[in-house]
Amino acid sequence: MLPSVFALYQAEIDAEMRSILEERQSPLYDMMRYHFGWIDENGCPQCGSYGKAVRPTLCLLACRALGGHHRRALPAAAAVEFVHNYSLIHDDIQDDDRERRHRATVWSVWGKPQAINAGTAMRMLANSALRRLDIPLSRQAHLHYLLDEATIRLIEGQYLDISYEGRFDITVADYVDMVGGKTASLFGCALEIGSAMASEDTAGVDAFREFGWNLGMAFQVRDDMLGIWGSTEETGKPSCNDIRRRKKTLPVVHALQRATGPQREELLRYYGGRSEDAESVDRVLAVLNSVGSFDESERLADSYTDKAKDAVASLSLDTGAARDIGEVVDFLQTRRF
Amino acid sequence: MLPSVFALYQAEIDAEMRSILEERQSPLYDMMRYHFGWIDENGCPQCGSYGKAVRPTLCLLACRALGGHHRRALPAAAAVEFVHNYSLIHDDIQDDDRERRHRATVWSVWGKPQAINAGTAMRMLANSALRRLDIPLSRQAHLHYLLDEATIRLIEGQYLDISYEGRFDITVADYVDMVGGKTASLFGCALEIGSAMASEDTAGVDAFREFGWNLGMAFQVRDDMLGIWGSTEETGKPSCNDIRRRKKTLPVVHALQRATGPQREELLRYYGGRSEDAESVDRVLAVLNSVGSFDESERLADSYTDKAKDAVASLSLDTGAARDIGEVVDFLQTRRF
Repeated sequence: MLPSVFALYQAEIDAEMRSILEERQSPLYDMMRYHFGWIDENGCPQCGSYGKAVRPTLCLLACRALGGHHRRALPAAAAVEFVHNYSLIHDDIQDDDRERRHRATVWSVWGKPQAINAGTAMRMLANSALRRLDIPLSRQAHLHYLLDEATIRLIEGQYLDISYEGRFDITVADYVDMVGGKTASLFGCALEIGSAMASEDTAGVDAFREFGWNLGMAFQVRDDMLGIWGSTEETGKPSCNDIRRRKKTLPVVHALQRATGPQREELLRYYGGRSEDAESVDRVLAVLNSVGSFDESERLADSYTDKAKDAVASLSLDTGAARDIGEVVDFLQTRRF
Repeated sequence: MLPSVFALYQAEIDAEMRSILEERQSPLYDMMRYHFGWIDENGCPQCGSYGKAVRPTLCLLACRALGGHHRRALPAAAAVEFVHNYSLIHDDIQDDDRERRHRATVWSVWGKPQAINAGTAMRMLANSALRRLDIPLSRQAHLHYLLDEATIRLIEGQYLDISYEGRFDITVADYVDMVGGKTASLFGCALEIGSAMASEDTAGVDAFREFGWNLGMAFQVRDDMLGIWGSTEETGKPSCNDIRRRKKTLPVVHALQRATGPQREELLRYYGGRSEDAESVDRVLAVLNSVGSFDESERLADSYTDKAKDAVASLSLDTGAARDIGEVVDFLQTRRF
């Protein structure tokens, strides 16, 4: 189950993001509203939610944990969520994905040219969000810098991800490089900015960045595991979604490094080819299971989670916030969705 | 001929941009170096130039005109040029254009997914460039704001441009809306930032923004005219490039509003269809000439140029810089390339 802290902040994060969009006049922003599930493709209001809002929630928790009121960090939380969602809009274009969260992706409604605009404009709105922070301009400038650098790391990671397609020699270290940029940097930034809104204590802020980065790594590894072994609601069996989409996520990278002989042949044939049938998906899953990719992925996720916990263990945190953070960490470590 | 001031600053603008890229490590940035003509697609150095660098040159001239040394504004000039070129990289993807400046576009070498990354990352580097400015962080924050807002206007304009495809009821006012965002905003921003690097005098800075915005409008209208009536080197005849590409630039928007009867039919048939032959291009050109689209476009360009000149006429500018600015304005008004 989703920890209660997500429900606690979601409405406020949502309201902050909506009000930033409301400052703008152009149908361009309807694509963003659609993406967040606030309207349908015809512009009619919807009450859909756009996801768990993990990053902005963590951002607010970090602020609270260091003694700040979470509301002080709301614009920062919105900024982080805009950066994450801009990257999803561009990702869907780049991966040719027609569906996200059981809805048509922005590009599959408006076309790729307009979806590129929606994504880049949303990244710009993250800066508009940061400008709402009630802090001196010189400190604001520093947070801008952090968010810009996290975005650059994110794009460098996305570059690597795409460049790995068609390659079979990717190592786990290559994977860590890629995910470190694509996912962990923004997690680190979310926690760093959130904690910086409460405190100018460098040690505390650094610890939260370190915490966030490692949590982001654990989050992505778990996401990769769920993409394969996450069970479908109907059957309870592994969904194998990412095998079907031929995504070279961690378990596959691991298996490609580990498998030999006919098992390796099987992987090369599947990931090198275009053929697709239920049997080949099952055979790939069998290889992954046989070479221990599940256990190895879980081991890696746990080791990042431990590093994350270690990073903040020495800080004397506000009890309530420490408990909430602990709940989020535990949830991310064991989640099944 | 290109006024000498372009040659004067180009090397310094170039060096500034290169050194910003040099701070980064990733093959991602090779796509940008390629775009600027510094390397070929295999990474070998080239001595190509990436264009006239109109915007950064104007940025530096504005700084000098208000009494600052142009070098103070170099990072701002680089930032503006990064914004312009990010938009070109995305434009080429959106328009499916395989060639720019007689070279393959970034996407046609690296594919659209990676070119999206190159464009967005280049927009982020514009911020890195601004951070090099030797001014207090609070003033830097203001320039960041200006560049972010100009980018948002640019994307809103690009949104309109794409949304006009397939429509035949676009008015000249709609066109002005679109180009005001897509082109004029960044011109205005280039001049505003450049002048702000020399002076905190609001009236002077406002005048330069006004100057830049109107100059940008004139620049785009002239560009639209050259896209149709610009002569090919070989024949000396109108190239009709933008007619061939079915781009609804100003002359076409004007003609669609003005033409009636069979002439309108001709335009609707051509711009609504997919057929292409030399005769239909000639017939469209004949309609444009017959309804006075050339003269009307020239009239509009001249009126924006006059407004631009008026905006700075009342300022007492440094003589040398005023002459250089005058030369650039005259060049933009009469250029044939």
